[in-house]
Amino acid sequence: MDTKITLAESEMPTRWYNIVPDLPEPPPPVLHPGTHEPVGPDDLAPLFPMALIMQEVSQDSFVDIPEEVLDIYRLWRPSPLYRAHRLEKALDTPARIYYKYEGVSPAGSHKPNTSVPQAFYSAQEGVKKITTETGAGQWGSALAFACSLFGLDCEVWQVRASYDLKPYRKIMMEAWGATVHPSPSDLTSAGRAILEDHPDSPGSLGIAISEAVEAAAPHPEIRYALGSVLNHVLMHQTIIGEEALLQLAKVDEQPDLLVGCTGGGSNFGGLSFPFLREKMAGNMNPTIRCVEPAACPSLTKGEYRYDFGDTAGMAPLVKMHTLGHDFVPDPIHAGGLRYHGMAPLVSHLYELGLVEAEAIHQKECFDAGIAFARTEGILPAPEPTHAIAAAVREANRCKETGEEKVILTALCGHGHFDLASYEAYLSGELIDYDYPEAAVAEAMERVPVIAD
Amino acid sequence: MDTKITLAESEMPTRWYNIVPDLPEPPPPVLHPGTHEPVGPDDLAPLFPMALIMQEVSQDSFVDIPEEVLDIYRLWRPSPLYRAHRLEKALDTPARIYYKYEGVSPAGSHKPNTSVPQAFYSAQEGVKKITTETGAGQWGSALAFACSLFGLDCEVWQVRASYDLKPYRKIMMEAWGATVHPSPSDLTSAGRAILEDHPDSPGSLGIAISEAVEAAAPHPEIRYALGSVLNHVLMHQTIIGEEALLQLAKVDEQPDLLVGCTGGGSNFGGLSFPFLREKMAGNMNPTIRCVEPAACPSLTKGEYRYDFGDTAGMAPLVKMHTLGHDFVPDPIHAGGLRYHGMAPLVSHLYELGLVEAEAIHQKECFDAGIAFARTEGILPAPEPTHAIAAAVREANRCKETGEEKVILTALCGHGHFDLASYEAYLSGELIDYDYPEAAVAEAMERVPVIAD
Repeated sequence: MDTKITLAESEMPTRWYNIVPDLPEPPPPVLHPGTHEPVGPDDLAPLFPMALIMQEVSQDSFVDIPEEVLDIYRLWRPSPLYRAHRLEKALDTPARIYYKYEGVSPAGSHKPNTSVPQAFYSAQEGVKKITTETGAGQWGSALAFACSLFGLDCEVWQVRASYDLKPYRKIMMEAWGATVHPSPSDLTSAGRAILEDHPDSPGSLGIAISEAVEAAAPHPEIRYALGSVLNHVLMHQTIIGEEALLQLAKVDEQPDLLVGCTGGGSNFGGLSFPFLREKMAGNMNPTIRCVEPAACPSLTKGEYRYDFGDTAGMAPLVKMHTLGHDFVPDPIHAGGLRYHGMAPLVSHLYELGLVEAEAIHQKECFDAGIAFARTEGILPAPEPTHAIAAAVREANRCKETGEEKVILTALCGHGHFDLASYEAYLSGELIDYDYPEAAVAEAMERVPVIAD
Repeated sequence: MDTKITLAESEMPTRWYNIVPDLPEPPPPVLHPGTHEPVGPDDLAPLFPMALIMQEVSQDSFVDIPEEVLDIYRLWRPSPLYRAHRLEKALDTPARIYYKYEGVSPAGSHKPNTSVPQAFYSAQEGVKKITTETGAGQWGSALAFACSLFGLDCEVWQVRASYDLKPYRKIMMEAWGATVHPSPSDLTSAGRAILEDHPDSPGSLGIAISEAVEAAAPHPEIRYALGSVLNHVLMHQTIIGEEALLQLAKVDEQPDLLVGCTGGGSNFGGLSFPFLREKMAGNMNPTIRCVEPAACPSLTKGEYRYDFGDTAGMAPLVKMHTLGHDFVPDPIHAGGLRYHGMAPLVSHLYELGLVEAEAIHQKECFDAGIAFARTEGILPAPEPTHAIAAAVREANRCKETGEEKVILTALCGHGHFDLASYEAYLSGELIDYDYPEAAVAEAMERVPVIAD
């Protein structure tokens, strides 16, 4: 009765999977924020290294992972797949629950799967510094870690609320050599514009993106990196699902249900895309479900239309499920899920009916997180507690029906930097934010109208 | 060129190693704190479950690990052994550096290797609650984790200074269901006695031990657990060294030098005892070195004599290298190394000349910790930075001499809860405490004089 299903380093996949060419319909084009015309590689060149731009628009089903990236992946990959025996027993369910654990990375989440190749390609093209935004700090830490390994400077705009409330993530970034600013900052015109109207602004991911983009774009030796949403980011994360496929095969299992939490969509895409490939090829038939916070439910409540990726409208327009680019979600503890939109690829799959979605309130998620910690031992970050809560829902349904379903999820990060959130939960002070319908309606009025 | 050397779950050792019967001389007996006569199992029964007492005095070389304990070990064990390729390259050394990483446990350190069996044997004997002390919180977290898996209550006295400065460790213990008090507390007579004289006492491990012992001893359904120092604790940790032996054999290596940080001695003993067995048997000949903080150097500066394990003199008298049972070390960041004594077994080995020791200042340790984080990726806890600093010293010597030495160390925990310490280091505010000679001399005057 194995607890962990491990792969040897020699079994680690050496290619990322690009789902785009396998889709029944191509995803809609990305548009220039000023002209509203489809962007070409040159439009993106001020922001990203060319290797990543070519991956963003690639029609190849598989992309080789560079040896230098594999070398660093080996610091923590292949990551373990766990059978949650103790959780199953506590739930008294006939379901078999598996979770792929990405918290074993040095930064504590799945984010280094993409920060490492992003830093690698940037260094290869002569970039000296990478700018980025971060909310709770998972992405900023991952990029700081990756930059330290390739000798790159790293400058991070961290959402003010998280900067103040979670100082340890900032110090972790600094330990890896990064510079961290609270956002909005007076270092960019985007930040100054916000501060002028709202001197006490707690910031948002959209604002921080605007600042990091502005700091990178005019300088040839500086590039910007995004930790989710884009096609190449989701592709880098497919190493999660490729490993999980091999690991489940080792114990002769196929998932009946795959659940993943969705903020920008990279953890979900990373786990699910390889399984979607197998599903589209007729090799298995799992239900694939996104789980999002009730307070920021872009898939289940948002509109599918073109919107900006950032608050200031400097980032390209992408067709996605959006709550409005300047919508500021309530301060739920899953900071990584507080994004106004959804990865265009995940949105496209949802429209095609290839994936489904549900939204869960944060108290139910923390209930599941504590139950998980007290059985499986690992204290999860608030983000993956959404996926755990969905797995628990399904396991409880199986208890009713007697179905021995195989449930697969990704535990995308540990909660070592989220203990203030657990304290709020344990002391009964957690606010169970509902869907802010009026605020979203107001924000949606400012979304540009783009003819398809 | 493997980065990680892993073992399959099926290769995990199923026995702990007890070094006592293999020693050239038996270690001196443990004495009753009141009568100064050798203690028997019955004297210890108010504190520990009988299974652990029998392990404490066992003359068996190997003790089978119960299946229930192996089941939980499998949540994170076998732990990986890493070859530190990137650190070696940065140091430009011909030495080959290996580190056994214990931060993969849910509590983030090696401590669950003993908290799990301690909770298991307690539950098996009908115990309902376990009390303990903790400093920085590694041990308290590990026991809270273990108790949650066996349905036991857990009550922790945490050294006041750490309780105030590191609130997240406390919340982690609470997330696993434990109750945490600052020590000294007004819940025990030992705590009240300290508070009467020193209302603002920052506490010490010795005081917290007195409180936890007092809270357990009179109650048959409550037992006390210690996270280091004792023979059975060190024995439980030998799973580290047993795995490392198998892992090094896989890459056909033998260590020339083994370095481990020493506070109470459990991490060091766990890594080194299986290698000492092989050394005593003539199968290999590594130098085995303890590394301790310059501010609390029990082995290199302490006297080898009988002293109390706790401040109040309620715990048994053990022969060990001690700085005096009521010596309060300066507030170095490696909270786990701030203990006035050393494990009697490690002390005995030091006297026998089987292990050597060196003391290092904390700034050099943090230098090494940051160099490690920026090459190997993992941010180490302040405790193992002592071992890393010693490994770096040796690697630099090898660079001078050209020797291709194999250096083995244990990275016994990550630094996710120690970022305030890294902040102090990065901002240049770290105090490089020297050996407090006068304070130790004063404390040594209060050590009881026991005829051998």
